[in-house]
Amino acid sequence: MTTTAETPAGQDRDLVLTRVIDVPRHKLYRCWTEPELLKQWFAPKPYTTPVARIDVRPGGASYIVMRDPQGNDLPNPGVVLEVVPNEKLVFTDAYTKAWEPSEKPFFTAILTFEDLGGGKTRYTARARHWTAADRETHEKMGFHEGWGICTDQLAALARTLRE
Amino acid sequence: MTTTAETPAGQDRDLVLTRVIDVPRHKLYRCWTEPELLKQWFAPKPYTTPVARIDVRPGGASYIVMRDPQGNDLPNPGVVLEVVPNEKLVFTDAYTKAWEPSEKPFFTAILTFEDLGGGKTRYTARARHWTAADRETHEKMGFHEGWGICTDQLAALARTLRE
Repeated sequence: MTTTAETPAGQDRDLVLTRVIDVPRHKLYRCWTEPELLKQWFAPKPYTTPVARIDVRPGGASYIVMRDPQGNDLPNPGVVLEVVPNEKLVFTDAYTKAWEPSEKPFFTAILTFEDLGGGKTRYTARARHWTAADRETHEKMGFHEGWGICTDQLAALARTLRE
Repeated sequence: MTTTAETPAGQDRDLVLTRVIDVPRHKLYRCWTEPELLKQWFAPKPYTTPVARIDVRPGGASYIVMRDPQGNDLPNPGVVLEVVPNEKLVFTDAYTKAWEPSEKPFFTAILTFEDLGGGKTRYTARARHWTAADRETHEKMGFHEGWGICTDQLAALARTLRE
């Protein structure tokens, strides 16, 4: 398994996690799109994910709540923008539902699941911000470590799936 | 033909134009979604619309250029978010294409075409802003007058369509 964390030239608003995972892509996609699976990996432990809803279609609402070890809930409302089953999933926090603007458009998540053959997948999670300042804030919030831990959890869960 | 310009209670981020137009809704929808028709009504005269492109599907790019009487071009890039043929069209300037964030998310346009029977349509154009301050800016830019004139042009063009 290899991981790279990069900010490509000319894309100073993006934070990117790319990893080759030894699991077929449809299992990773399932972990992102099925609420009962999402709850098991979405928050970096010891955080938990008590609530996960996602309506997997353009314009569908997503609502995922993370709970910190002190019991504080951190809600993450968003809207799905693009769906290519097993290949791509895009959502944003710019809306809380279709089409209610959120308090602050912060980023768009662009997830791609590339089939590498042999049961392997190149998984890329791109957080694309509206401003470079927001990208920097997100980076300082611990994007790379947090999303890295979550991706470990995602891969471990996906490996346990039969189908 | 009746026109109302309203800002419903609790929706202080919206500017709304509603009008009953004596044209079947599919003709109004065509005027919004076919570039050669868009160019004929989109800008309030004496402004013109030399360029109009719209990829009518969720995630499709729209790019419409208005030209002022002095020859200055005012580009309007955006992305389509939701399409219900002949009924609803939603797009936003929060992205310049899928999924490139724009410099500033300003508003989402929510257009609805309600069939009233007898060849009439209730046409509603709602501009939903991310902030109340942006709504106010848009209102001061002349939203009601500008969109009102454009809607006159839209209705006049739609009446000339055979199908």
